[in-house]
Amino acid sequence: MEDFRFQNKTDIRFGKHHIDEELHDAVAQFGDKVLLTYGGGSIKKSGLYDRVIKALADLKVVELSGIAPNPKIDSVREGQKLTKEHDIDVILSVGGGSVLDASKVIASAKFYDGDAWDLVADRGAKSRANIDQLPVVDILTLSATGSEMNSGSVISNPDLNIKLGTNGPNTPAVSFLDPQLTYSVSKWQTAAGSFDVFSHLTEQYFDRATANDVTSGLIEGMMRSVIKWAPVALAEPDNYDARANLMWGATMALNGIARSGTKNGWTVHPIEHELSAYYDITHGVGLGILTPRWMKRALSTETQARFARYGREVWHLTGDDDQDVAQRAIQATYDWIKSLGIPMTLAGVDINSDDKFEEMAEEAVRIGNLDHNGGYVNLTVDDVVALYQASMTTTDFE
Amino acid sequence: MEDFRFQNKTDIRFGKHHIDEELHDAVAQFGDKVLLTYGGGSIKKSGLYDRVIKALADLKVVELSGIAPNPKIDSVREGQKLTKEHDIDVILSVGGGSVLDASKVIASAKFYDGDAWDLVADRGAKSRANIDQLPVVDILTLSATGSEMNSGSVISNPDLNIKLGTNGPNTPAVSFLDPQLTYSVSKWQTAAGSFDVFSHLTEQYFDRATANDVTSGLIEGMMRSVIKWAPVALAEPDNYDARANLMWGATMALNGIARSGTKNGWTVHPIEHELSAYYDITHGVGLGILTPRWMKRALSTETQARFARYGREVWHLTGDDDQDVAQRAIQATYDWIKSLGIPMTLAGVDINSDDKFEEMAEEAVRIGNLDHNGGYVNLTVDDVVALYQASMTTTDFE
Repeated sequence: MEDFRFQNKTDIRFGKHHIDEELHDAVAQFGDKVLLTYGGGSIKKSGLYDRVIKALADLKVVELSGIAPNPKIDSVREGQKLTKEHDIDVILSVGGGSVLDASKVIASAKFYDGDAWDLVADRGAKSRANIDQLPVVDILTLSATGSEMNSGSVISNPDLNIKLGTNGPNTPAVSFLDPQLTYSVSKWQTAAGSFDVFSHLTEQYFDRATANDVTSGLIEGMMRSVIKWAPVALAEPDNYDARANLMWGATMALNGIARSGTKNGWTVHPIEHELSAYYDITHGVGLGILTPRWMKRALSTETQARFARYGREVWHLTGDDDQDVAQRAIQATYDWIKSLGIPMTLAGVDINSDDKFEEMAEEAVRIGNLDHNGGYVNLTVDDVVALYQASMTTTDFE
Repeated sequence: MEDFRFQNKTDIRFGKHHIDEELHDAVAQFGDKVLLTYGGGSIKKSGLYDRVIKALADLKVVELSGIAPNPKIDSVREGQKLTKEHDIDVILSVGGGSVLDASKVIASAKFYDGDAWDLVADRGAKSRANIDQLPVVDILTLSATGSEMNSGSVISNPDLNIKLGTNGPNTPAVSFLDPQLTYSVSKWQTAAGSFDVFSHLTEQYFDRATANDVTSGLIEGMMRSVIKWAPVALAEPDNYDARANLMWGATMALNGIARSGTKNGWTVHPIEHELSAYYDITHGVGLGILTPRWMKRALSTETQARFARYGREVWHLTGDDDQDVAQRAIQATYDWIKSLGIPMTLAGVDINSDDKFEEMAEEAVRIGNLDHNGGYVNLTVDDVVALYQASMTTTDFE
C-alpha cells in the first residue's frame, strides 16, 4: 500500500428531507450575495428552481444559467465576471456535474484577474491551488461525476478542441443529495451517469499498488451496487432505492477514498476526453464504449490475477483458471454496459470516420501521460488509435 | 436507504513518511502549548517518544502519561486540570484508542468547570456538543477502535462499574497512521484489535434499513480485508501490508461511512462493555467471545437472507439454501475468531461465575436500549443473560 493523505470536508446532506429545511442556512452561513448557477430549463420545469428561490428569499441572488453538458469555458468566464461585479459570497450550484464543475472553477476565478482558461490550462497545479476559492453549495440532480465531494472539474474549450481536468483547493462546502431529484433523468443520462461511476471505479481498481485490500474491497462493493441498481433505475425511473444507491455510489466513487493507497494514473478518461472534446459526445457513453476494449488490451499474464479477482468478487464468477475468469469478466462487463442501452460502437454516437484518431490519440497520450504515467498498463499513441479503431465495430465482443 | 448527514474533517496522514516531516507543523498550527498524552512506557522503549519530543522541540510540552486500556475517568480529570493550568492549545495523543479516547474528552473538559465525569455520564447529548473542544492531533500505535477518525470515546468509571460512550463535536484534527508503529503490538492485542474492527463492521452491517447496497458492499469489502490480513499480522508481526490493511481498515470501519443510510443501533458493544466494566477484560476479546453467540441468537427466518448474503459475499460460501449458508457463515466466523487465538469462552478471560450476569444484562439493556433501540434484533434482559451463559462453554460451536 502506498502512503497517502486523505481529507474531505464536504458536508453531505443525503435523502428526502434536507433541502427545504436546511438550504437557506447552508447557503447563508457564507454570506448573503449568492450566485445561483444552473443549466437549461429543467429545474424550472421540475419546480426545483421555485423551491430554491423561495428558500433564499431574503438573500441577494444573481443567476447564471445555460451551463451546458461538457461545460464550456465561456460559462466560467461569464461566472467570473458576475462574481466580481456583484462581489459574490457563495455559489449555489443546482444541476448535475457539469453545472457544478463550472461553478467550482468560477469559485476560483473570482479571485483571478486574468482569463479564466488559465486556471484550467495549467490543470490547477499552480494557479488554483494558490488562490482563494468561494464556498460552493450544491443541489445535485444527476448521479455521475462525483463532483459533489471532490475538488475536480472538467472544462472544455471548443476553440482549442480541448477538454481538461483541473483541481481547486477545496471540495464543495455542502452538498444536498436527494435521489428523488434524479427521477426525471432520462434513460440515456441514467445509463451514461451510471457507467461514468463504474468507470471511476475501474480507473482506481486496476492499479499497480499491491495488497491494497481495503480499497479494493470498497471498490468491489461499490461496483456490485452500480451493476445491480443501474438496470433498476432504467426500468423504474422513480425507484427510490435504485436512485439512492446510484447517487451515493457516485459520490463515494470519487471522493478520494477509493484512491487511498493506490499509485495509479487514469487511462480511459483521458482517452474519452478526446472523444468529447472533438465530438461533444456524452462522457459516460464514451467511457462505456471504450472501457471493455481497454480491458481486453490491459489483460495479460501479468494482470490476469487482478482481472480474475474482479470477475470473482464483482461478477461472482467461479473457476480456478485466472485467464478464463478474467476473459469472462470482461465479456460480462461489455454485456452489462450494452444492457444499459449504451451503443457499443462509436458509430452509435455518430463518429463514423477515423480521420481524427491519430490526432486525438496524440493528445490523449500527451495530456494523460499514458505512455509513462504509471497507469495500470502504459499505452502508446498506436495503442490508443487501436482502441478507437476497435470501438468502430462490435466484432471483438459479439 | 435512510436519510443521513455525513461530514468528517479529519486530516489523515497514512504511511511511512509523514511523521518526522509533518508532525511539528500539524501540531504547531494550533498553538505552542501542547499536552502530550500517552499510556505506559512502550512509546519510550520504541523510540517514538524521542522522535515526538525532538519534533516539538520549540513548543511548550506538558505531559500526561499512564493512560490505561479501558481508559479511566481519573486520567481525564488529570488532563482537565493540566489543560486549564497550562492553558493548553492542542493535545497530541500518542498511543492506541484508549489514550486517544481519553484525550478527546480532555479536549472538551478544558472548557468545562465541573467534574469531567459529567461529560461522559450524559453521553455527550448535551454537555460536550455545546462546549468548545481543543484540537487533537494523534499518532496511532494500535489498529482497533477507529477513534482516530471519529468523535467518540469510551470511558470507564471503576467506582461505578460503568463504561460509557460519549461523543464530542469534533473528530481529531490530524491523525498520523504509520503501520510500522504497530509492528510491536502483541499477538493478544493484534487479535483483539482486529476483532474490534470486525465487530464495528458487523454492528453496522446487520441493519434494519433495506436496499442499502453501497454501504453493505463497502462493509463486505472491509470485512474480507480483516479476515485476510489479521492472521498474517499474527504470523508475521512486521508484515507491512498486513499492518497497513488492518490500520486503514480500522479507521474506515468507524469514521461514519459504514453507517451511511443505516438505521441500526449497536447490540454486541453494550453487552461487552459490561464485561469490561465489571472484569476489565480486553474489549476486542470480549466482542470475539460474544459475537458468534449473538449471531446465532439473531438468525431467524426473517434475518437468514442477510446472514446468507454475509456468507456469500464475505466468506465466499456457495449454495442456494439461505438458512444453511447463514449457519455456515456463523460457524466460519467462530472458527476464524478462534484461529486468531482469542479464547472462545468467558473462562478464557477468567470470568468463571455467572453471579453478575443478571446485573450486567440489566445494565446493558438499559444503557444500549437493547429491548427497543431498533438494533438488528431486540434483546431482553433474559436474552442477554442467555448470551453470557452461552459464552461459558463451547458446546454451541464445537
